[in-house]
Amino acid sequence: MIDRPLVAFLDVNETLSDLDSLTPAFEAAGLNAADVYPWYLAVLRDGFAATVLGDCPRFADLGAQVAAARIRAVAEGLSDDEIATAAADLMSGFLRAQPHPDVVSGLVALADAGVRVVTLSNGSAAVARALFESTAAATVVEEYLSVDDAGAWKPSPVAYRHGLGWAGIDAADGLMVAVHPWDLEGARRVGLRTAWINRHGAVYPAGFTTPDIEATSFDDLARILTDGPTPQV
Amino acid sequence: MIDRPLVAFLDVNETLSDLDSLTPAFEAAGLNAADVYPWYLAVLRDGFAATVLGDCPRFADLGAQVAAARIRAVAEGLSDDEIATAAADLMSGFLRAQPHPDVVSGLVALADAGVRVVTLSNGSAAVARALFESTAAATVVEEYLSVDDAGAWKPSPVAYRHGLGWAGIDAADGLMVAVHPWDLEGARRVGLRTAWINRHGAVYPAGFTTPDIEATSFDDLARILTDGPTPQV
Repeated sequence: MIDRPLVAFLDVNETLSDLDSLTPAFEAAGLNAADVYPWYLAVLRDGFAATVLGDCPRFADLGAQVAAARIRAVAEGLSDDEIATAAADLMSGFLRAQPHPDVVSGLVALADAGVRVVTLSNGSAAVARALFESTAAATVVEEYLSVDDAGAWKPSPVAYRHGLGWAGIDAADGLMVAVHPWDLEGARRVGLRTAWINRHGAVYPAGFTTPDIEATSFDDLARILTDGPTPQV
Repeated sequence: MIDRPLVAFLDVNETLSDLDSLTPAFEAAGLNAADVYPWYLAVLRDGFAATVLGDCPRFADLGAQVAAARIRAVAEGLSDDEIATAAADLMSGFLRAQPHPDVVSGLVALADAGVRVVTLSNGSAAVARALFESTAAATVVEEYLSVDDAGAWKPSPVAYRHGLGWAGIDAADGLMVAVHPWDLEGARRVGLRTAWINRHGAVYPAGFTTPDIEATSFDDLARILTDGPTPQV
């Protein structure tokens, strides 16, 4: 049986939001669906590099910068101003990102199981909040936390301690939930328990510490925390 | 006039090596040309995340891990062993990477200008060395340094100080050369001067400090250090 955590801290980008839902915003900027994931990787690369150097940039600023470089590389004849505007428009598309289909029901089930639900994002609180606007999850998410208020991006320990401090709990009573091994590794280093959402049948990379829980969706996570893991046959 | 540095520290992956030359190794593993750059971005993401946590993984290990995940996602019916073998083969393809066309002549010209030439890579020394085997650059590169011996990846200050310590120079007498703004930013924080190789007419991202030198190639860099920058008209 798995001890139920007091608080589940949920990563936002790609864990809750479906990056594919950003495709229209990329297309409006003259890019395409194949640009979305490399863009996201490049934003994390630059954000983590900044974190190594002790900086804490805004996700939206890095996102616009990386998008502008890509738009410049593929667009013909756009002025600097037009590129900056297209990149800014692309980033405002983030406010129209959609959650994965398992997320709203899964978060409601987590809350029904008595777990406090809080998001903890390298992006802004506003983007996380917009994800659930006019959904049933809006009423069960207790708070939208951002590393903007922590002073360092995940996976810095500072970011997770910000969440723990806000929630007023010991690390062992918290569960970090993410699709990203790097996020769970950072959480584990401060003593949080970890749950990996593995929607696509991936194998957890050997270079990272095995998570405490593996679930195929948020619905599955809520079920595991209620009933225990499915026996391996 | 630009003071000539005593030592030029050269980034390796993408700065000296042409990532497109890795395509055959990716194709041999069942992947394709479009997988190369996202793979590289994901390796940097994971390497920088580890650096945030104080770890110093081997580039080749992360590279194999990221490649294995991608091979698993696209291949049908491969066993775990077959996936691991394909990923290992892909990584050994790194030893057959080719330098950009401007690199060998540019490094020879840098050395002719009296600048000591040293590589400083997040990857292994062996990969950097293999890049120049049986080229004229092999005789002008004084040493192939790797962060494996520093204990932290670039852009950690530790990595650049490893290079400075090896060379026995003050930071102000060294020049970091890279295509990557994150690398130049890290170098600048320890006092190195910086040169950006901009082969594709990009614009330096505003979130990073403007480099001391911008060059279109290593040939151009050698010329600038000899004759001074081209006047802006």
